[in-house]
Amino acid sequence: MDLRDLFKSAENTEEFQAGATIFEEKSTGSVMYVVLDGEVEVRRGARVIEVIESGNIVGEMALIDPQFRSATAVAKSDCRLAIVDEKRFLFMVQQTPFFALHVMRILVNRLRRMTASQMD
Amino acid sequence: MDLRDLFKSAENTEEFQAGATIFEEKSTGSVMYVVLDGEVEVRRGARVIEVIESGNIVGEMALIDPQFRSATAVAKSDCRLAIVDEKRFLFMVQQTPFFALHVMRILVNRLRRMTASQMD
Repeated sequence: MDLRDLFKSAENTEEFQAGATIFEEKSTGSVMYVVLDGEVEVRRGARVIEVIESGNIVGEMALIDPQFRSATAVAKSDCRLAIVDEKRFLFMVQQTPFFALHVMRILVNRLRRMTASQMD
Repeated sequence: MDLRDLFKSAENTEEFQAGATIFEEKSTGSVMYVVLDGEVEVRRGARVIEVIESGNIVGEMALIDPQFRSATAVAKSDCRLAIVDEKRFLFMVQQTPFFALHVMRILVNRLRRMTASQMD
């Protein structure tokens, strides 16, 4: 199953042109995004740490645990994103356990990659 | 709310004496644990990377995304753990959105700490 299927009829979407900033490191923010079309680059400082392809999520950390954004997100190509606020997120977690598991897997994968990159 | 409340009447529990190994890095494993009493030390190689206090979870990565264990868990004190297998985990996620959110927050907190430790 693909998150695009869950969000394809989302009413709250936003389009970004290639190069546009979606959110900035150290800003406050309480929404996450599902990438419906295009690609998003996640940067920390000048370093690209991840490229998020369509069907995946970006910005979920500030939604799950409200704090400053830990990275900057920039549209790598023209892209269309579904905006998921806290209310929608809680509804999805409650109604769609698949969604909760998917988010958890993304977080675990990221932890595994960070752990691997810390290994000597 | 405390995970101990959710698991206090769990039937599937296990006790470990201080110093006993709960699981080992690079082993396979598909259960996670809720620490009901005592403390658990998480180690990677010789380094202690986290101390898990009662009310918290340990070993959730291998359950959410089945792969080898990324760390070793050792009882820091005598402790009692509730064992959560995949079936129970999926049931909890489905029935208790709070549980899913709690697990997500733990993962996000860990990501934030790892990110911070990578910063210069």
